[in-house]
Amino acid sequence: MLTSEAIALLEKFRTGQVSLEDALKSFQAAPVVDLGFAAVDTHRALRKGFPEVVYGAGKTPEQVVAIAEKIVGADSRVLVTRVTADHARAFRERFPESIHHEAARALTLERTPLQKRPGTIAVVAAGTSDLPVAEEAALTADFMGNEVKRIYDVGVAGLHRLLARLPDIQSANVVIVVAGMEAALPSVLGGLIGKPLIGVPTSVGYGTHFGGLTALLGMLNSCASGLTVVNIDNGFGAAYAASQINALRV
Amino acid sequence: MLTSEAIALLEKFRTGQVSLEDALKSFQAAPVVDLGFAAVDTHRALRKGFPEVVYGAGKTPEQVVAIAEKIVGADSRVLVTRVTADHARAFRERFPESIHHEAARALTLERTPLQKRPGTIAVVAAGTSDLPVAEEAALTADFMGNEVKRIYDVGVAGLHRLLARLPDIQSANVVIVVAGMEAALPSVLGGLIGKPLIGVPTSVGYGTHFGGLTALLGMLNSCASGLTVVNIDNGFGAAYAASQINALRV
Amino acid sequence: MLTSEAIALLEKFRTGQVSLEDALKSFQAAPVVDLGFAAVDTHRALRKGFPEVVYGAGKTPEQVVAIAEKIVGADSRVLVTRVTADHARAFRERFPESIHHEAARALTLERTPLQKRPGTIAVVAAGTSDLPVAEEAALTADFMGNEVKRIYDVGVAGLHRLLARLPDIQSANVVIVVAGMEAALPSVLGGLIGKPLIGVPTSVGYGTHFGGLTALLGMLNSCASGLTVVNIDNGFGAAYAASQINALRV
Amino acid sequence: MLTSEAIALLEKFRTGQVSLEDALKSFQAAPVVDLGFAAVDTHRALRKGFPEVVYGAGKTPEQVVAIAEKIVGADSRVLVTRVTADHARAFRERFPESIHHEAARALTLERTPLQKRPGTIAVVAAGTSDLPVAEEAALTADFMGNEVKRIYDVGVAGLHRLLARLPDIQSANVVIVVAGMEAALPSVLGGLIGKPLIGVPTSVGYGTHFGGLTALLGMLNSCASGLTVVNIDNGFGAAYAASQINALRV
Amino acid sequence: MLTSEAIALLEKFRTGQVSLEDALKSFQAAPVVDLGFAAVDTHRALRKGFPEVVYGAGKTPEQVVAIAEKIVGADSRVLVTRVTADHARAFRERFPESIHHEAARALTLERTPLQKRPGTIAVVAAGTSDLPVAEEAALTADFMGNEVKRIYDVGVAGLHRLLARLPDIQSANVVIVVAGMEAALPSVLGGLIGKPLIGVPTSVGYGTHFGGLTALLGMLNSCASGLTVVNIDNGFGAAYAASQINALRV
Amino acid sequence: MLTSEAIALLEKFRTGQVSLEDALKSFQAAPVVDLGFAAVDTHRALRKGFPEVVYGAGKTPEQVVAIAEKIVGADSRVLVTRVTADHARAFRERFPESIHHEAARALTLERTPLQKRPGTIAVVAAGTSDLPVAEEAALTADFMGNEVKRIYDVGVAGLHRLLARLPDIQSANVVIVVAGMEAALPSVLGGLIGKPLIGVPTSVGYGTHFGGLTALLGMLNSCASGLTVVNIDNGFGAAYAASQINALRV
Amino acid sequence: MLTSEAIALLEKFRTGQVSLEDALKSFQAAPVVDLGFAAVDTHRALRKGFPEVVYGAGKTPEQVVAIAEKIVGADSRVLVTRVTADHARAFRERFPESIHHEAARALTLERTPLQKRPGTIAVVAAGTSDLPVAEEAALTADFMGNEVKRIYDVGVAGLHRLLARLPDIQSANVVIVVAGMEAALPSVLGGLIGKPLIGVPTSVGYGTHFGGLTALLGMLNSCASGLTVVNIDNGFGAAYAASQINALRV
Amino acid sequence: MLTSEAIALLEKFRTGQVSLEDALKSFQAAPVVDLGFAAVDTHRALRKGFPEVVYGAGKTPEQVVAIAEKIVGADSRVLVTRVTADHARAFRERFPESIHHEAARALTLERTPLQKRPGTIAVVAAGTSDLPVAEEAALTADFMGNEVKRIYDVGVAGLHRLLARLPDIQSANVVIVVAGMEAALPSVLGGLIGKPLIGVPTSVGYGTHFGGLTALLGMLNSCASGLTVVNIDNGFGAAYAASQINALRV
Repeated sequence: MLTSEAIALLEKFRTGQVSLEDALKSFQAAPVVDLGFAAVDTHRALRKGFPEVVYGAGKTPEQVVAIAEKIVGADSRVLVTRVTADHARAFRERFPESIHHEAARALTLERTPLQKRPGTIAVVAAGTSDLPVAEEAALTADFMGNEVKRIYDVGVAGLHRLLARLPDIQSANVVIVVAGMEAALPSVLGGLIGKPLIGVPTSVGYGTHFGGLTALLGMLNSCASGLTVVNIDNGFGAAYAASQINALRV
Repeated sequence: MLTSEAIALLEKFRTGQVSLEDALKSFQAAPVVDLGFAAVDTHRALRKGFPEVVYGAGKTPEQVVAIAEKIVGADSRVLVTRVTADHARAFRERFPESIHHEAARALTLERTPLQKRPGTIAVVAAGTSDLPVAEEAALTADFMGNEVKRIYDVGVAGLHRLLARLPDIQSANVVIVVAGMEAALPSVLGGLIGKPLIGVPTSVGYGTHFGGLTALLGMLNSCASGLTVVNIDNGFGAAYAASQINALRV
Repeated sequence: MLTSEAIALLEKFRTGQVSLEDALKSFQAAPVVDLGFAAVDTHRALRKGFPEVVYGAGKTPEQVVAIAEKIVGADSRVLVTRVTADHARAFRERFPESIHHEAARALTLERTPLQKRPGTIAVVAAGTSDLPVAEEAALTADFMGNEVKRIYDVGVAGLHRLLARLPDIQSANVVIVVAGMEAALPSVLGGLIGKPLIGVPTSVGYGTHFGGLTALLGMLNSCASGLTVVNIDNGFGAAYAASQINALRV
Repeated sequence: MLTSEAIALLEKFRTGQVSLEDALKSFQAAPVVDLGFAAVDTHRALRKGFPEVVYGAGKTPEQVVAIAEKIVGADSRVLVTRVTADHARAFRERFPESIHHEAARALTLERTPLQKRPGTIAVVAAGTSDLPVAEEAALTADFMGNEVKRIYDVGVAGLHRLLARLPDIQSANVVIVVAGMEAALPSVLGGLIGKPLIGVPTSVGYGTHFGGLTALLGMLNSCASGLTVVNIDNGFGAAYAASQINALRV
Repeated sequence: MLTSEAIALLEKFRTGQVSLEDALKSFQAAPVVDLGFAAVDTHRALRKGFPEVVYGAGKTPEQVVAIAEKIVGADSRVLVTRVTADHARAFRERFPESIHHEAARALTLERTPLQKRPGTIAVVAAGTSDLPVAEEAALTADFMGNEVKRIYDVGVAGLHRLLARLPDIQSANVVIVVAGMEAALPSVLGGLIGKPLIGVPTSVGYGTHFGGLTALLGMLNSCASGLTVVNIDNGFGAAYAASQINALRV
Repeated sequence: MLTSEAIALLEKFRTGQVSLEDALKSFQAAPVVDLGFAAVDTHRALRKGFPEVVYGAGKTPEQVVAIAEKIVGADSRVLVTRVTADHARAFRERFPESIHHEAARALTLERTPLQKRPGTIAVVAAGTSDLPVAEEAALTADFMGNEVKRIYDVGVAGLHRLLARLPDIQSANVVIVVAGMEAALPSVLGGLIGKPLIGVPTSVGYGTHFGGLTALLGMLNSCASGLTVVNIDNGFGAAYAASQINALRV
Repeated sequence: MLTSEAIALLEKFRTGQVSLEDALKSFQAAPVVDLGFAAVDTHRALRKGFPEVVYGAGKTPEQVVAIAEKIVGADSRVLVTRVTADHARAFRERFPESIHHEAARALTLERTPLQKRPGTIAVVAAGTSDLPVAEEAALTADFMGNEVKRIYDVGVAGLHRLLARLPDIQSANVVIVVAGMEAALPSVLGGLIGKPLIGVPTSVGYGTHFGGLTALLGMLNSCASGLTVVNIDNGFGAAYAASQINALRV
Repeated sequence: MLTSEAIALLEKFRTGQVSLEDALKSFQAAPVVDLGFAAVDTHRALRKGFPEVVYGAGKTPEQVVAIAEKIVGADSRVLVTRVTADHARAFRERFPESIHHEAARALTLERTPLQKRPGTIAVVAAGTSDLPVAEEAALTADFMGNEVKRIYDVGVAGLHRLLARLPDIQSANVVIVVAGMEAALPSVLGGLIGKPLIGVPTSVGYGTHFGGLTALLGMLNSCASGLTVVNIDNGFGAAYAASQINALRV
């Protein structure tokens, strides 16, 4: 089954023109491209509304390139997260038009950039060391077709800096809050804005931060309603959810 | 300062007609009603777009009634969560028009019901014992002005039951997934729908469920992107966030 | 050895007029009053500058009364913490002039009230359910001869309420911050005041609060320098340390 | 005592022809070959029905070779697990006919391959990064004389892929499920097949996966009956148990 | 759809005469009996080869009876686990022919007893306090049509008692080992028998047993290959898996 | 086999006059008295040099009495630990000559008291609330034939009290140190005496004592060499080990 | 806004001559120097009474130098903690007058040394391996304008060494106690001195020290009143708090 | 004060000829040799009956040599534990007559070897990877003047091997049991011998062994009375305690 056929088929399923049973039947008939180490699933972009993302950590540069080659067709786009310098070198050699975002530890290949949807996603970060995670979130949100506003270094210990940026934060549709250590920032923000908040605890700190567990627990127990949380350092996941939320406002 | 004055003032702050400094100045001038054991904050409905909610657990029936009396004005509404039979008795005696939702362990008083906004919130629950938390979520979402669809007892061990309800779930704007034990349900749903998902781990299970920690960790580590999580048993928090998300779609 | 003799002796040791060896020799010679279940140490007030405190939890009302009787002499004072209604009844029967502080779960007997030293200790609490711990701290600090200022229900989710009380907090010598759940309050205060801060995490919350562990970890990892921490719910310990600090300012 | 004598003796014990006491007496008389760092136990294959397995991790290449030399007789077989490239080099130099299975991180030496018993063992794996553990399981099961079917990359986030392979899984006698992160796969499979399931949690994930603990807890709390679990990353143990189960069906 | 129709349909699916798609289609068409608090799934006995089991803990006596009534048809059978005296009273009043197994904390209703399959399951328990869990396992295995041999009070501290019962244990097809505290018994047994072993850690002990966690960890880290583990106190789950294994030997 | 025969037999085994095989053979021949819920092992006194001890917690008064009846012969002795008032009442009714040691939560029945061996065991306890555990240790040590010296209420916060009792402690053969909270006492003692020290952490404290885990960890990490540790609250185990050590000095 | 202007403004706010609103307004107007990776906050010295401290860990040498350059004005001072040799080299090249304190793993640049305030801070350390943390505390306290007394290697296992230094410790205003392993030292000191005590647990030990968690828990549960605690290895935080306390004594 | 003087003095204190006060006075007068990084305490051998031991881990080779030089006098002896190859090289260069025990990771310098006391200490180890810890224990025990019997590779999975060595173990005065993974060995031994047992959990295993925590918990919860435990991998501590016990038997 060609990808274009699959797209047509699944689109019909989404809109109810084709039943679950028939869609399943077709899927089972369609061969999945098998790379030996990972069954690349070219249907996934359709089912979930987002192109395949490659999680680079733990894969060799060769594996990352091979997976990307299968995904990328005439008009496709790829995002590779958690990349090292070695990944970047191999990837950029094979796809010279790709971009290496060092601060976000990611690679993007965008032959057909998405049109930006209305509404912005704010990415707020407490400390300097939260930046890699914040950048991963910001880049992912941007890549998924959202306007992104970065508001960094506004921890609660310097409350006046945070208050100075408040209007910017309040004007966003969704707010991603990235914070390590004791993660007090989401609690303070939760009391000041009325939009969906997604907390990303980071593995920043020392002593009893327990690799971010303290920040995670702090966010889960926050007194601020309207806050939901993703896994430690999971900037990608937060941006993915934020993009789904932002996409609702049409 | 009267509540109506505060409403007007804050509305102006929200829309940028009044500066932060002036708003703060006014707040500091306005006396907070002091009950001795809890400063009731009548401005909160405005600031956060939602009436005061009373968390019943750990308060005496008398305290709950006293706080509610301060909140309730001519047209106000109150939601009391985590109530016991004693809370319910005292509350209904004082407010005969209130309703005791036993399954949700909550009380509501709605003199002016909110008009339902467009779009639905689906509340999906895996097992019988997850129902109190699911009902708390469903009731809160309904109370905040959302259409709610309840889809219960669809755990992954009976996959065909879940697939049979899939179209219902897919048509919602936001999906709240309530699950205990190993909490596999959000992972399966995450692969089948393309809307924001909020997971609520419950403290259901035995052996090594650790009061819901296993379910929480399972959700945080879920392979399904687009999933964010709230604290264990926090049906209220999930509904609050879901309502904020649903409100975006105007 | 009479108590007055011991006082004289220890005072000399403190000021260097008697050597350690001689002090130890005297102590070993002095009989300790033995109640069978607890060696009441009448010297402790001297050594540590504070009368014996009885920790009520886990002791029978009879044991509490018996220990108190040994401590109380012509001019002595006793503080009993963590008391139940049964403790209170037995104690007040034996010492009719004693006071039962219900909110603080404590009993005091003060025949010769201490003169208040200059400077105040502020006790700041985030939520209604933190009050028992906050009251234990406030009562202890007061009992040890300090002026105490209580500032309650000023959590970070209602930032304007906190800012409104800021001048009161800033004017204290030492600040005790009592907070449960995610304990963001000390982090915010740490950025706004320049005095010693002592955090008391409380066992308030649900889900993953882990009996106060989340609040404790949050305080230990706070970005706010100048903050030190005591054990969960240990209002007494915080007040004891605060009093020692306040006593420095002569 | 010669190995052949031991075999005969133990076989008699197993079948009841020799008593426990006599067997113990003989064992104590028989010298155990002592290598200084590990008493090689040549009887173990008999007692447990399986040749000695060498756990390579933490041993020097020389130690691995020396232990293998003692085990290998005219017709013996050896499996070395968790080997590095250094182990492999030294081993293959000494035993040129041995095979290095890189994906499974193992070495095998099989002079007399076992005849395959009827019935298959399915090894199902959720993600790319679970493969080393899955391969260790598959290789061990194969080495112990079982037909093995490998079914990889069928996580629950891509449910249609899993359903497409269901008939293959259902036809096996025993199913080994290898999964990291939140390990939802065994729960889903448990509802679809009626054969013994053995779960192997893997140390794959990030944030709060805690080195596989989340996956382990997820499996232990799975709602799917019929599932038993081995230690994190213990592909060998799962295959050993699966082989014992498969051997029952004669 | 009648149950008999469902049986016929699913039997065809199992044997490959009906495709997955058609089976799913039928299931979705068939109404699930809805009790409000639990969708009773009358197909489950077929899909999983075992009648519905009701987990009594956390349900009211009325709920247990209502669920059982739906399950029980002309020839059906019910097992209720974790029952209290109240459950038993209500259940026996409604189903006078049912039996209350106090030691196993369970109720059974067997109008058409299953024929016992060949081969036995041994249930081995270390201490007196492990008996409730061991009995739950033994009763479940018996109820599922297996011969059961109970071998109790054979902890490793009395090694001679264990050795004396060894022949009995060795003659079983599958061995369930129930042990609390440090759970050394499975490790010792693992070295002496060559059959599948299923460990059930129990929440027995004091000090640092952590509600059975120590026993669970001990079993997971056991040096004895061939051992798999279920959740703490999960006698039912162990018996279910053991029965599936025993059923293989036809 | 009569107990006297078993004694003779085992004594010969201990001294090498009878081989292991023959001893095992005899044991297996000898019937173990079976009470249904606990195989009473009348040989245990011989094998381990100490009469059967009954752990009362979790057993009914009837069970405790029944087990004791089997143990007690013409000249036997029984120790029941962790007894409630109900246990005591039933036991004393059946064995009027028995003694209920309330502080130690234990019962003893001693028809033929053991002769005290030379050398003493010191039991040192830090706080009032450690006394039940300390008394369990002291009573057990006494019951096993040792002179016991009780030294209570000597925590490190009152160092002079501890130093005053030092000579008493130094003159013992073995020292049992019972301490809760942060358990600093063993570390201090370890630097002052040169005899074997056995630490018993107790589950005393509040906040982060974690049911004694903090005290246990403190003892395990103590800088004082010569200290070994038993489980939390395990006064019996500490006394048992201390008695074995004291018995060496003949 | 110039730094001198900010100083004047904030000084007025502190003393109540300028209101909060006006101060906030000014702050928001003042541009924060933006380095891209960290918003250097030159007002912080004023707000908190202490110059900016740079936490070196996790920053490149270039970042550390760049941040320091922004902080350092005509008369400013900088403290960089947790520096590596690379940090030191780059820093000393740029600021030749700076000092590298190797034992404390810190760098200082002091163009205008602070005048020492009256009163001393004692830094007491238990073991050799606690020295880096103790030195960080001592250096920070000194840098903040306090007289510092170092009292090292006085663990409780050598009680006489500790007692020999007692008078020195007793004469300080505040005592910082640095201890790893089981951290018994603060408990002993707490009973001997009557001044504020700040405990710093260190990540020293092996086995179950859990990276300092055992020491932290030991201090939190210490029986010694007057003790407060900071995070593991947080020598800086302890010194900061101690300096605030010492500054009270004017 | 010369070491010989100190010896005489302390010997008198031990035997009661000199009072505590006088001994303390002398100690305070005696200068402690200060190396800057560690106060070498030459009195310790006397106070505790054992020469200074140097814990090598975390110290530079130069520091180890410098400390050793201070300890070693005309007739002194030194044991350095946890040494690397670098420590060994530097140490052997300075003290050519010293011995490097590689298996035990230790260095010894014995100019005047101790005379062996009567009675043996058995060191029993379960697996190959437990040997470094077992050797540390064996070497330490030997160095302290005890006869040592090494009994290695006798895990419970090979019960006959253990039984074959039982007489050897039974003849010792004290038994040190070294075991990792699930640590079942001490439980089995505890039922077979009647001498003091000291368990040393090791950090051997994988998956959920948690760096030895599982083994530690297993030992603490062992059903075998008479067993006490030291910290993970603490072979030195076990041997120290065993030697103190063995020394009792005079």
